[in-house]
Amino acid sequence: MRYRATVEYDGTGFEGFQRQARGHRTVQGELEAALVKIGWRGTSLLAAGRTDSGVHARGQVIAFDHDWRHSPEALTRALNSYLPTEISLREAAVVEAEFHPRYHARGRRYVYTVYQGPQRAALRDRYAWHVVEPLNGLALAEASAALIGQHDFATFGTDPDEWENTVRTVQVAEWLDEGDAWRFVIQADAFLFRMVRSIMGALVRVGSGALEVDRFRALFAARDRSQCPPIAPARGLCLEEVLY
Amino acid sequence: MRYRATVEYDGTGFEGFQRQARGHRTVQGELEAALVKIGWRGTSLLAAGRTDSGVHARGQVIAFDHDWRHSPEALTRALNSYLPTEISLREAAVVEAEFHPRYHARGRRYVYTVYQGPQRAALRDRYAWHVVEPLNGLALAEASAALIGQHDFATFGTDPDEWENTVRTVQVAEWLDEGDAWRFVIQADAFLFRMVRSIMGALVRVGSGALEVDRFRALFAARDRSQCPPIAPARGLCLEEVLY
Repeated sequence: MRYRATVEYDGTGFEGFQRQARGHRTVQGELEAALVKIGWRGTSLLAAGRTDSGVHARGQVIAFDHDWRHSPEALTRALNSYLPTEISLREAAVVEAEFHPRYHARGRRYVYTVYQGPQRAALRDRYAWHVVEPLNGLALAEASAALIGQHDFATFGTDPDEWENTVRTVQVAEWLDEGDAWRFVIQADAFLFRMVRSIMGALVRVGSGALEVDRFRALFAARDRSQCPPIAPARGLCLEEVLY
Repeated sequence: MRYRATVEYDGTGFEGFQRQARGHRTVQGELEAALVKIGWRGTSLLAAGRTDSGVHARGQVIAFDHDWRHSPEALTRALNSYLPTEISLREAAVVEAEFHPRYHARGRRYVYTVYQGPQRAALRDRYAWHVVEPLNGLALAEASAALIGQHDFATFGTDPDEWENTVRTVQVAEWLDEGDAWRFVIQADAFLFRMVRSIMGALVRVGSGALEVDRFRALFAARDRSQCPPIAPARGLCLEEVLY
C-alpha cells in the first residue's frame, strides 16, 4: 500500500533533504533509515521537494510503499520513535497507488522569517535571519506585488531539472508584520532552485532602502541570474505546506 | 568600570551556565572566553542565576569589570561577534561598582512551555516539552494558586547553597493557553535547585488528571523531596527576566 506522510524537520544539521553518498547526513537518508527499521524494503522514497542544506520544513510531503499491517497512526508513532529529534512525522495516510507527492502537487507555500533589532538574538537565530536595518513595509509590498502571476523567474533561480524552463506561477506573495519580525509568505505552483532565498535577498534590500523598487522590477524583468543580489541565508526559510 | 549585560542563550548544547573544568562546554565559559578576546582580565564574571544543563535564557543578567574605552553598544557588538551563535548579548550598560546581579535581584521570572498533540514536532522540540495528554486548564490554575506567596518549597527542590533554607516567595504562577501549547509563567524572589522543573513535572500530572489537586497540595505541604513526581525536561524551560 502507498502511504503519504507530512514531515517536519529542523534543517540545521542536515546537508539538505535529498539523499547523498554515505557520510552526508540528509533528511531523506534519516527517513529511509527509519523506514527500514519498520520493515520497509523500498529503495527510495518520493518527496514533494528537495529543500537546500539548512532549510526547515513544517509540511514536506513524502510517499512510500509498505505492507504495514497496523494503523497509519501506529506507523507515525513507530517512525517518530526511530527518527532523530530534528525530524518528525506529523501524520500519515493510505493513498491511491499512483499518488506522487511531487508531480501531483498544485502548489508549495514557503515562509521566510526575518527579525529586526540592533543585536542578533540567540533564541531566534536558528529559524530566522537577523536584519539590523529597519524594513519599510510599503516598499516590501510594492516590490512583492510584481512577483504575483506567471513570470519568467530566471533572475531568481535555475531550473532544478535543467530543462531550462524558468517560468513559474506565484499565487501568493505577502509580508506579515509581527512587530520586531517580518514573515514573507510565498506560494507558487513550483519553485526554481534557490528561488525563495534569491527573492528574499533582493526584497530585504528593497525594504532597507538599498535597492529601489523600480530597480527590483528591472532586474526581475531582465531574466538574468547575474543581476540577482546575494541570496538570503537558509535558516530563515521553511517549507510550510504542499498543496494538492 | 562595572558593566551589566543581559544575555540570551540556547542551552541545548551546554552543560549548564556555570563554568566547570576544562572540556565541559558552559555558557559562562564561552562568555568569559569572549570577554578575554576584548581585553578583559578578570577571573570570573558574576551572574544572576545558574541555569541547569539544557535550560535556555532570554534574560540572564551578568556583570563584569572592564576598562573598555568605547560605548556599551560597541561592547555588545564586539562580544556578539566573538560568542557562538547559541549565545548573544541583548544589551550592556555601565552600572555602579557595587552592583551584583545575584544579590541585588528582587525576582526571577521563568517560562516553561508545553506543546500538545498526538505526535512530537521537530520544530518545537528544542524549546518546549511535548505532552500528549490534553491538559485541563482549570486544574492547572487551581493547583498553581497554591504556590503563590511565601512557602517552604522543600518538596520541589534543594537549596543551591546548602544552607537548607528552602523557603521562597512566589509572586506569579499562571498558565497561558496558546491553543495547542501552554506557557507556565512563574516568578519568585529566588528559586531552589530544579524547582521550576519539579513543579512543572507535578503540575502537568495534575493537568492530565494523573494527580489530584488535593494530592498536589498535600505533597507540597509535606515538604518532602521524596514525594516529588519526576521532573520536567530542561528544554521547555527559559529564564525570561531578572528583576531589580
